[in-house]
Amino acid sequence: MALSVRFVLCETSHPGNIGAAARAIKTMGFEELVLVNPRDFPSSEARARASGAVDLLERATVTGTLTEAIAGCGLVIGASARRRSLQWPELSPRECAAEIAELAADKPAAVVFGTERAGLSNAQMDLCNALVYIPANPEYSSLNLAAAVQLIAYELRLAEDEPPEQQRAEWSPAAADHMELFYDHLHRVLLKSGFLKPDNPRHLMRKLRRIFNRSRLDEHELQILRGILAAVEPPDDGDANDGSAKAHGGSG
Amino acid sequence: MALSVRFVLCETSHPGNIGAAARAIKTMGFEELVLVNPRDFPSSEARARASGAVDLLERATVTGTLTEAIAGCGLVIGASARRRSLQWPELSPRECAAEIAELAADKPAAVVFGTERAGLSNAQMDLCNALVYIPANPEYSSLNLAAAVQLIAYELRLAEDEPPEQQRAEWSPAAADHMELFYDHLHRVLLKSGFLKPDNPRHLMRKLRRIFNRSRLDEHELQILRGILAAVEPPDDGDANDGSAKAHGGSG
Repeated sequence: MALSVRFVLCETSHPGNIGAAARAIKTMGFEELVLVNPRDFPSSEARARASGAVDLLERATVTGTLTEAIAGCGLVIGASARRRSLQWPELSPRECAAEIAELAADKPAAVVFGTERAGLSNAQMDLCNALVYIPANPEYSSLNLAAAVQLIAYELRLAEDEPPEQQRAEWSPAAADHMELFYDHLHRVLLKSGFLKPDNPRHLMRKLRRIFNRSRLDEHELQILRGILAAVEPPDDGDANDGSAKAHGGSG
Repeated sequence: MALSVRFVLCETSHPGNIGAAARAIKTMGFEELVLVNPRDFPSSEARARASGAVDLLERATVTGTLTEAIAGCGLVIGASARRRSLQWPELSPRECAAEIAELAADKPAAVVFGTERAGLSNAQMDLCNALVYIPANPEYSSLNLAAAVQLIAYELRLAEDEPPEQQRAEWSPAAADHMELFYDHLHRVLLKSGFLKPDNPRHLMRKLRRIFNRSRLDEHELQILRGILAAVEPPDDGDANDGSAKAHGGSG
């Protein structure tokens, strides 16, 4: 059974890497390449390095943001060049592939790669359900971007060929764009309730994103949470901010 | 325990591939690169693509024949771009790595890669103990040379790392009794807000438990969520149940 996987490259600097990544993806039997804001594309260098995978380059989607790139995807996994000290589920490439293979395939999974120099930004990681970390030489762990894509695609191919393990619960992940609507709603409720201070909301919202992204909500669960937000949302008019405004503040 | 592995590239056409292969080898913690009759070496393109692995290039041995290149090696495994119909032991990259890891390490193993265009010649394969075949898309199996080196080196690194399981992030879970206090609080807020119908609350609370239990909260995250509940909790007095009670009900 073919896995449905979208490979997303963010703000790639070197077009040669885009071409080499396309080749890596195609050799492992995958087809979907999305480029977020590439510095130089289309490019003859990308075509040269793509070799027989020029068709993937020509069909590649280019978007302005990662949010657009992962729209409609279920599980979103970010490739991390180094271990992060954050509270994030961290998968090996093999575990990453196994998780994707176990999914009900009604939505594509996405694997997201950051820039050659700096990897994924914090804001980009906040859109991911988990991170995949490629084990490497601690003294020189700087894998080429296309090499990292190759390794992940290889493990995905192996996982695909694997005899179908017992199906995990038929999890059907919520669409990434629906998750964004939920976070917008959550943000609004927290502001209105006085919990979120407008001066530094980012830090707290990031923590909340991590909590819910780790949990991997499905659409039904998302609806429940949206329903709760609607039920507790203070009304829009100024009367809500009366003297009894809650004193609880974010400790984040 | 570090595996002793010599990576041998035969008659490589493109110096960029030599540099990229050096980088691939070094990122996986290996050091020994031997070049059999490279077409263009040393080369500035090789240096550029080697990035931080230029030291491997500079220490690379250049020989005129594969026989010289594998002198002193024990197990010699040839990388084959396609399945051969010959009577040859054919290993997957993982099996190849396992075989090398199981060897008494008194001699280095060699993994031998042929030309970009044609792979290993029959005469070169005759010097190998076995072949390793990288699974690929049958319709486009043309891996880049450095990508093939990267995959083999990666499997070797994993085989080397095997026994000590990778440490999970230092996750410090919230105490189970604190989780219960959180669920009690959540339950209270949902009842007061009118979201939870008192007639059948169990079903919905179970779904909410699953969401947060999957997420594996730590104590700090739990505090944040408790803070949010306190901020949105309707006041205790009966006035809260006025005519404007929210109409949103749990769909669970």
